[in-house]
Amino acid sequence: MTNLERVSRNKSFGGWQEVWKHDSSATATPMQFGIYLPPQAASGPCPVVYWLSGLTCTEQNFITKAGAQQMAAELGLIVVAPDTSPRGTDLPGEHEHWDFGSGAGFYVNATQAPWSDHYRMDTYVTEELPALIQAHFPVQDKAAIMGHSMGGHGALVLGLRNRERYTSISAFAPISAPSECPWGHKAFGHYLGEDRAAWAAYDAHLLIQEEGKALPILVDQGSEDNFLKEGQLLPEKLEAAAKQADYPLTLRYQEGYDHSFYFISSFIAEHLRFHSQYLNA
Amino acid sequence: MTNLERVSRNKSFGGWQEVWKHDSSATATPMQFGIYLPPQAASGPCPVVYWLSGLTCTEQNFITKAGAQQMAAELGLIVVAPDTSPRGTDLPGEHEHWDFGSGAGFYVNATQAPWSDHYRMDTYVTEELPALIQAHFPVQDKAAIMGHSMGGHGALVLGLRNRERYTSISAFAPISAPSECPWGHKAFGHYLGEDRAAWAAYDAHLLIQEEGKALPILVDQGSEDNFLKEGQLLPEKLEAAAKQADYPLTLRYQEGYDHSFYFISSFIAEHLRFHSQYLNA
Repeated sequence: MTNLERVSRNKSFGGWQEVWKHDSSATATPMQFGIYLPPQAASGPCPVVYWLSGLTCTEQNFITKAGAQQMAAELGLIVVAPDTSPRGTDLPGEHEHWDFGSGAGFYVNATQAPWSDHYRMDTYVTEELPALIQAHFPVQDKAAIMGHSMGGHGALVLGLRNRERYTSISAFAPISAPSECPWGHKAFGHYLGEDRAAWAAYDAHLLIQEEGKALPILVDQGSEDNFLKEGQLLPEKLEAAAKQADYPLTLRYQEGYDHSFYFISSFIAEHLRFHSQYLNA
Repeated sequence: MTNLERVSRNKSFGGWQEVWKHDSSATATPMQFGIYLPPQAASGPCPVVYWLSGLTCTEQNFITKAGAQQMAAELGLIVVAPDTSPRGTDLPGEHEHWDFGSGAGFYVNATQAPWSDHYRMDTYVTEELPALIQAHFPVQDKAAIMGHSMGGHGALVLGLRNRERYTSISAFAPISAPSECPWGHKAFGHYLGEDRAAWAAYDAHLLIQEEGKALPILVDQGSEDNFLKEGQLLPEKLEAAAKQADYPLTLRYQEGYDHSFYFISSFIAEHLRFHSQYLNA
């Protein structure tokens, strides 16, 4: 039993932006997610796009700041935006760092204590949440996945690990090679342990080189992104790996844009159009 | 000397969303405002729209949540969004109420101590800020004014009191008859005193009946707005007064929408188009 309960509901562009809460078996905690139901969802099932947010975010950041509802309403897309980690637990050190623990689940299934009891965002995002959405909302089978920063990493790795589940992947400023950047070292070291072999299963620039169906991937990266300059994002490693593997990646550098939601909102419509062509193919 | 200083700058839809800070002579405090500079502003002056926010807001709410930048970029409009009250003072009771004091300047020039030293948002919005914008940014002479809730009240009253300064007025869920609602009683009682004759100078449904040029006015009101149901907004009094005075008001009820930024973002593009036709006439 999930105890699915609606937290809020606001009319938006002729559809409804809702937030729901439920008990998650994957994380063994309550979880919240946002869902935008476009006007078309009132008369029949719609394809769904999953959005994964970045470090420090809850389900609120995307639904209040990205401005995705306008194009989702135009294209008839349902957009689901989960929280970025379990909440309500109080593990040692869980709330002390903005880039690790609460708000920073990194979309992995943790294998290390104490994280492994709750930090299972991989299973939550790829299995439990889609099953719940399928059971309770008017969605078609087809789904796409997208995200920003840590959530761009999540979209890339969960999409590449589950190529039969998604039609397409897109990301804004993703953490593209977490095995090789400070954020990834910290998070993967705690969640997955020090054996780097386990890290490879959640590293986009390694996964993109594996055999499998080549899902369409669109990545936008702002040229003035401070985290790009600090070497946390490493899109050049994703690009080189895709080239090496002959994987058809579209990586665009957007001149002058930074890491913020002002960047996301400027290009979210293009990303939704990108997914729509595959969701409706 | 205003000590004008840029606080932040984010590229957005090909233009720039900036926040600036300066020392205000009107309020005798520092003040912050947001300004969106569309791509067209790089090559020449653009018309400007002033946005006034509602209770509890700073300059941040509108610039992060309304999604105005997209249409402002398309139409070539500069959008200026000031804070809603002086900050940094600590007057008796100033921070104890969400609907009065800080975050709740009500766009009046207070006449009562201790408010009259700082709470002079009328002069700030209609004189000091436009002069500063004119001096430091590439703006044309023409300006429009709009806002939400308390800021919708501000747009209506400041527009109607200064019909030669603005081309057009629009509002989302404005407080339309503050002399006759609890929010207005509380704020005007403190800022303007108990003599209701002074209140009339800041009451839209009274000002709309005065002689003068009939500026185009567009008002959108959500039908599911809790504050509408509580009798804080009273658009029906504005409508009746306009009819009585033969003032060409466009008041639209939007079915199912509430008082939130989800409502604003759904119709902000239409409001900017409305102003653009007069700004570019």
